[in-house]
Amino acid sequence: MSINQIGIVKRNIVRADKGAVERLARFGVATVHEAMGRVGLMKTYMRPIYAGAHLCGTAVTVLMHPGDNWMMHVVAEQIQPGDVVVAAVTSESTDGFFGDLLATSFKARGAKGLVIDGGVRDVKDLTAMQFPVFSKAISAKGTIKATLGSVNIPVVCAGALVNPGDVILADDDGVVVVPAALTLQTAEAAQARESNEGDKRRKLADGVLGLDMYNMREPLARAGLKYID
Amino acid sequence: MSINQIGIVKRNIVRADKGAVERLARFGVATVHEAMGRVGLMKTYMRPIYAGAHLCGTAVTVLMHPGDNWMMHVVAEQIQPGDVVVAAVTSESTDGFFGDLLATSFKARGAKGLVIDGGVRDVKDLTAMQFPVFSKAISAKGTIKATLGSVNIPVVCAGALVNPGDVILADDDGVVVVPAALTLQTAEAAQARESNEGDKRRKLADGVLGLDMYNMREPLARAGLKYID
Amino acid sequence: MSINQIGIVKRNIVRADKGAVERLARFGVATVHEAMGRVGLMKTYMRPIYAGAHLCGTAVTVLMHPGDNWMMHVVAEQIQPGDVVVAAVTSESTDGFFGDLLATSFKARGAKGLVIDGGVRDVKDLTAMQFPVFSKAISAKGTIKATLGSVNIPVVCAGALVNPGDVILADDDGVVVVPAALTLQTAEAAQARESNEGDKRRKLADGVLGLDMYNMREPLARAGLKYID
Amino acid sequence: MSINQIGIVKRNIVRADKGAVERLARFGVATVHEAMGRVGLMKTYMRPIYAGAHLCGTAVTVLMHPGDNWMMHVVAEQIQPGDVVVAAVTSESTDGFFGDLLATSFKARGAKGLVIDGGVRDVKDLTAMQFPVFSKAISAKGTIKATLGSVNIPVVCAGALVNPGDVILADDDGVVVVPAALTLQTAEAAQARESNEGDKRRKLADGVLGLDMYNMREPLARAGLKYID
Amino acid sequence: MSINQIGIVKRNIVRADKGAVERLARFGVATVHEAMGRVGLMKTYMRPIYAGAHLCGTAVTVLMHPGDNWMMHVVAEQIQPGDVVVAAVTSESTDGFFGDLLATSFKARGAKGLVIDGGVRDVKDLTAMQFPVFSKAISAKGTIKATLGSVNIPVVCAGALVNPGDVILADDDGVVVVPAALTLQTAEAAQARESNEGDKRRKLADGVLGLDMYNMREPLARAGLKYID
Amino acid sequence: MSINQIGIVKRNIVRADKGAVERLARFGVATVHEAMGRVGLMKTYMRPIYAGAHLCGTAVTVLMHPGDNWMMHVVAEQIQPGDVVVAAVTSESTDGFFGDLLATSFKARGAKGLVIDGGVRDVKDLTAMQFPVFSKAISAKGTIKATLGSVNIPVVCAGALVNPGDVILADDDGVVVVPAALTLQTAEAAQARESNEGDKRRKLADGVLGLDMYNMREPLARAGLKYID
Repeated sequence: MSINQIGIVKRNIVRADKGAVERLARFGVATVHEAMGRVGLMKTYMRPIYAGAHLCGTAVTVLMHPGDNWMMHVVAEQIQPGDVVVAAVTSESTDGFFGDLLATSFKARGAKGLVIDGGVRDVKDLTAMQFPVFSKAISAKGTIKATLGSVNIPVVCAGALVNPGDVILADDDGVVVVPAALTLQTAEAAQARESNEGDKRRKLADGVLGLDMYNMREPLARAGLKYID
Repeated sequence: MSINQIGIVKRNIVRADKGAVERLARFGVATVHEAMGRVGLMKTYMRPIYAGAHLCGTAVTVLMHPGDNWMMHVVAEQIQPGDVVVAAVTSESTDGFFGDLLATSFKARGAKGLVIDGGVRDVKDLTAMQFPVFSKAISAKGTIKATLGSVNIPVVCAGALVNPGDVILADDDGVVVVPAALTLQTAEAAQARESNEGDKRRKLADGVLGLDMYNMREPLARAGLKYID
Repeated sequence: MSINQIGIVKRNIVRADKGAVERLARFGVATVHEAMGRVGLMKTYMRPIYAGAHLCGTAVTVLMHPGDNWMMHVVAEQIQPGDVVVAAVTSESTDGFFGDLLATSFKARGAKGLVIDGGVRDVKDLTAMQFPVFSKAISAKGTIKATLGSVNIPVVCAGALVNPGDVILADDDGVVVVPAALTLQTAEAAQARESNEGDKRRKLADGVLGLDMYNMREPLARAGLKYID
Repeated sequence: MSINQIGIVKRNIVRADKGAVERLARFGVATVHEAMGRVGLMKTYMRPIYAGAHLCGTAVTVLMHPGDNWMMHVVAEQIQPGDVVVAAVTSESTDGFFGDLLATSFKARGAKGLVIDGGVRDVKDLTAMQFPVFSKAISAKGTIKATLGSVNIPVVCAGALVNPGDVILADDDGVVVVPAALTLQTAEAAQARESNEGDKRRKLADGVLGLDMYNMREPLARAGLKYID
Repeated sequence: MSINQIGIVKRNIVRADKGAVERLARFGVATVHEAMGRVGLMKTYMRPIYAGAHLCGTAVTVLMHPGDNWMMHVVAEQIQPGDVVVAAVTSESTDGFFGDLLATSFKARGAKGLVIDGGVRDVKDLTAMQFPVFSKAISAKGTIKATLGSVNIPVVCAGALVNPGDVILADDDGVVVVPAALTLQTAEAAQARESNEGDKRRKLADGVLGLDMYNMREPLARAGLKYID
Repeated sequence: MSINQIGIVKRNIVRADKGAVERLARFGVATVHEAMGRVGLMKTYMRPIYAGAHLCGTAVTVLMHPGDNWMMHVVAEQIQPGDVVVAAVTSESTDGFFGDLLATSFKARGAKGLVIDGGVRDVKDLTAMQFPVFSKAISAKGTIKATLGSVNIPVVCAGALVNPGDVILADDDGVVVVPAALTLQTAEAAQARESNEGDKRRKLADGVLGLDMYNMREPLARAGLKYID
């Protein structure tokens, strides 16, 4: 299945291990991004449509053309409980590809939410439904159903490659993609990082400086930092 | 009255029918935009200054120059209860053309809110007053009172033509303009659309797929969509 | 201490008078900007990371390189109670230079908040801590600690010059910088302006028009404004 | 014919007077914009696809949907020698709606050029043909032919209202729209302005200051300007 | 080799077939994008640094961190004659990652050019060298050499996935990526498309309308298009 | 003279040493920026209005309000041969503050060019005059003459602090500001850097890799870089 192949729906995809996904779901996006080695983030223009929205699940992907949401109905059938729909568009479009009717359908199929490099509408209804959406735009502009795209092929969404089955984690800090094969090791690295942080947080709250806690004074001086009065 | 004519205040304008406006006010922007045939939207950069802001009323228009809000005081006198002020600027400007004093005045005249292709300030006060504003920007930058514009001429605001008396509807999904002459038929089309949606929503909530409800499988196959495993 | 000098930490800075800062803190950004003669604002892209965030304090400044937050730890040590950290970057960067650990440290030092021409992360935690941050972006992207910048030199942040010790005031309307030497006179001008506004607000609420209250009818006519029916 | 009406082609439009168009064609966009009273400009993002492109002609308009150039073929038939095609899109789209084949067709019909609030492609060929295009974007992205728009209805293009038959003038400084009914008076005002400028230019070249030539010293002093050493 | 893996240099990559690359080089970006089925384009913000720049070659990829061009020196060694360097950055950065010294080195290694989702500098020298560069920005800002990235891993550059060995074609219309395995078939499809276009161009130049040449009148009428006078 | 003080014209300013300015003029912006320690650049949105424009001179500064170019006439009188006018605006504005008449006047006074954080017009004339301008925008939009700004106060222009008398250097790579007091030492550092580069360029042209020339192999290995086949 190559990237951007048009006119294909892949039915059987390998989803990341459920237990590992559940472990990842306990962490924030910043922590997981660090655990991945500082990669995997979508662009910062991807924002939640309501404050506090967050989601974690396995990706089913859909590629659409600008102003055309036909494939949204095709991807709906491929959703399994715990999935997140990741929607990419072949060129920039802020139109409203998704609204409360599709959200009702996606929710009935067990979707955890939507991540879309385009626009959505019916924000009030989606908020009332508490159906989490991370999007590039909000737009009432309607779309047509005229052109084929694909479902469950690899896509680039907001600057990040997403393969079907990858884990998608999104919160106030943005959206991160964890390749399915790396889910468990990423969850473990995130766990290690977080345990580590509790202790640091306590020290910093007590007034210990990062300069001392991280032993930065010496390397700063070596780099030439000068203190003056 | 031609577009962009400078130095004119038109006092008598024909407002859309009050009853029809009230009927339109019951719908969301996305529904009304669809009822209009997918036209009439302002650009997606127009956002409410507080969550949940919404408005519906008849347009009184004002054209200003960048950084100059003199005409805001002129338009205030033309406001009648139920009006929405639609403010356009002759070139891009994010300055704060409007704040709590003007809002107090507009409210006293019966205005339902403001739609402005520029900036506003005193957001905290406007929120406390629950005076709905949809704007391009928020900016504390003050403006001067030096140059004539016009009031109640046709204007282009955020990419949409607005004639005085047109209906302006705005909510979380954006801002839509309904020409005065189309108010009633648009309200009826919106009503038809919404009745229609209730039934669809129930079916989708029960797990029926859009693919089946809209009979899309056959046209998708004809277009060449291929399912693979 | 010249602008942009790299590799310097200035320890002793002259902060604006505490009493004058407290007086300024009672006003909104729009009022203070007007009291300054309509100057001193940062760009409108600087937004609070949570609704209702506001801050007022004396600036300690830090200059960093894109994607590198090493100097954040250096500036922490220079914070005194009542300070606001103002962070500039030598070129555009939306990376997450600041998160909950640094916020914990800054808070322990008595910081009133952060103003940064870059990105921050851990927005959920910062909101829970009610640590006010005004930033250009929100991003989970981690930063490195490799390159020297400076602390407490003059910096340009979001288009505004900030000298260490200046007063920084930020609320829903944006961020304004008051030079330390002008704090008292600005507080007084703001006070005068605000007393003035109460009376105007009452009149406008009673339906008096700005046209009459500000005697604008005559200058508008002189400028050529024409009323038509 | 109301704005944004979908599915309509108007065949008979009233074009601005040919002689007046020829007179306007001798002036630059800045001069004509001033002659209009500082209105009528499209947004500054409209740029020529090659250096030195310029055009002047009567508008035939076309409204398209994002990513769909079907109506480009419909508008081609309505072109008469001396026309400029003005293309608007119902929402933001940078796709390539136009390339060398359509340019060949438009040219054969006598078109003077294209102004499009969207993208174009085949820039190398268009440059070789010296077919002037002012656009929002350059993009190789292909479009479909699936949805009706309209031809020769009023449209908003890059923030400016364009009625069929209006004069469109474009050069390095941007694009200006002159309503058909104002063509002659605008040409005369432009002529007056330009005659006027020749004399000013000579004086300024001789070292006379604008301060003196425009008698600005007194009003500046009255406004409070202070000279210091 | 998974996407975004940090700290890796892959030495042996499979490049697209040389003969097929040469065939592709004869076509424009728009033609090849169409031949691919309307996919594979980078974002429209990628522009040549001088008019007329164009390139075609096999991708060697490099992933860098914002403001850090250390890996540019690592990728230089992996260049073989006929390669195009494709540079991605882990977050938005407009800094000048590349200038005349690196261009001298790349050219000595046989590089056909550079495509970079970031900034470059020394534009005057690069133009004099006629070393084609397509970039997001031009910036004199220098970068550091502190953090590892990777070479010859799959990267997302300006919204497009690029695997090492893929064909990169760039001209005035933008940048397109052709997967190595599809090079030959894409060249053939492009050839077929272009032969086809010569005949169309002649007909259109003779005044035949697209409406007739493409038999659009009947489907337009069926879709409901109405002609009025 | 504090930043942003309104209503002031300073007549006597200390300009950078003429000989040192001449020495600086021989270098490119990228070289001088490096010689300054990688600081002093304006934002990358500042672009020449014609290809090949470049300038070097001493700054006279002007602060204007959006849409108001009154102070342009005031600054004209303060120009001395060899000066570059640096124009800042109190908030974002793309209007055309400057055109061929002002250019004629500035040129007659001996100005080397203009750097403006706003728009200009009459680009064709300015190009014919070969009067170099670096601006944020090109716009035919006219401005008014109603509000005081200041001349020869410190200003922030496109993100950089400029003091009157500083050296401004601009070419295809952007705009850099050199504080008057640092002119000579910067010229010397630039000279050293450039001598240095000639040798490097020759080696790289001969196929020597930066990896070897800069001894990077060992630090890369230490940082953990892995080569695989």
